[in-house]
Amino acid sequence: MAPHGEGSEEAMVVQDENRKPISSILIVIAMQTEAMPVVNKFQLKEDLDPVFPKGVPWVRYHGIYKDLHINLVWPGKDLTLGVDSVGTISASLVTYAAIQALQPDLIINAGTAGGFKVFDLYGVGLRQCFSTPNLLKELNLKAGKLSTGDSLDMSPQDEASIVANDATVKDMEGAAVAYVADLLKVPAIFIKAVTDIVDGDKPTAEEFLQNLAAVTAALDQAVAQVVDFISGKCLSEL
Amino acid sequence: MAPHGEGSEEAMVVQDENRKPISSILIVIAMQTEAMPVVNKFQLKEDLDPVFPKGVPWVRYHGIYKDLHINLVWPGKDLTLGVDSVGTISASLVTYAAIQALQPDLIINAGTAGGFKVFDLYGVGLRQCFSTPNLLKELNLKAGKLSTGDSLDMSPQDEASIVANDATVKDMEGAAVAYVADLLKVPAIFIKAVTDIVDGDKPTAEEFLQNLAAVTAALDQAVAQVVDFISGKCLSEL
Repeated sequence: MAPHGEGSEEAMVVQDENRKPISSILIVIAMQTEAMPVVNKFQLKEDLDPVFPKGVPWVRYHGIYKDLHINLVWPGKDLTLGVDSVGTISASLVTYAAIQALQPDLIINAGTAGGFKVFDLYGVGLRQCFSTPNLLKELNLKAGKLSTGDSLDMSPQDEASIVANDATVKDMEGAAVAYVADLLKVPAIFIKAVTDIVDGDKPTAEEFLQNLAAVTAALDQAVAQVVDFISGKCLSEL
Repeated sequence: MAPHGEGSEEAMVVQDENRKPISSILIVIAMQTEAMPVVNKFQLKEDLDPVFPKGVPWVRYHGIYKDLHINLVWPGKDLTLGVDSVGTISASLVTYAAIQALQPDLIINAGTAGGFKVFDLYGVGLRQCFSTPNLLKELNLKAGKLSTGDSLDMSPQDEASIVANDATVKDMEGAAVAYVADLLKVPAIFIKAVTDIVDGDKPTAEEFLQNLAAVTAALDQAVAQVVDFISGKCLSEL
């Protein structure tokens, strides 16, 4: 009997959690260019008393918007190379450390990503993100399957894997954030603005840089709309 | 003047640290098959009061050998797939969490790896691990450049990168452990036993499985010798 009883109690706790208004969100963004418009939009302040270990380049901005505590983290500049610490390892570490320190109700991983010409909404993802049917409908956003890799360009082997799994968007952090969120049982959603068509004619790096400013503005707007939508709602209403 | 003064003090602290006998080592191993011989060899006990967050599959074994506190961590079985959590993300997370919780003096990442027929000891690595000239000489171990990737098989693009960087050994965790160790300023060394010749004639998976038992025994022996060598020494004597 005991395991049954415990199981039911746990289910009730989860249900109650889903019905409590969301009070704290953690936004994970890999690039400074992508992060700053969101920081400015919500007038977030940089952390002066860091929650992260001494010496790491990770940066936290925080503030209150309506009834939401917003924490935004980006992995900062690589200490050796001086460039944004993009990729899965930095993303997984900063997400892990931020969940441990801040205990958010919901994670939003936002960023730019590459898109594929063939857009297929069907198929089963390897990892299901938190389902947000109302949010998608209200804000008129597209749902897609995300593939994550540590390379900006795509090798033929990567492409074959992505196509075989019906992914329509490719980024460099999403799966790492999803892995950590799943490990620590925090619901997570992913907002990706498409910078370039990976299987199109132009080289990825060129198209990426040409479109980055415009796409970052679109990303900024989408994140703002999502945060507005979340404010005052509980998880089960998303 | 102040920055100079601070710099000198810090240098002195680092030097003193290097002259203190090593008292605590953290061994990071990705696969259970690789970990258990080391656990048995040093009669390590599984942690009953976990230092890691609730729900994560990470496992810690610990014990005392001569004057060394030994902690051994492996990322455990994937909660969804039931297989060993190999790869860079698990390795970086468990290394990060273990450093935070256990504050080791030295990290040893041990494991099996693929090797390359062309063995070249020259060239400059992207990330320099902690230098151990005495240890290499005493134990008659070979030094090499390690390349890390999340795939057991090697795509032609990966091979080109590895060859261009003169790497002679390929694993799936080393660079992730090195990244975190560097971030948190803990010296790290890497012991890799070669399971298969990546650029040889046999398929990697087949050769890997055939050789795993023999290579794991060699790894076990090398780790035991290294731990014996470290015991009673300070970092600058390695």
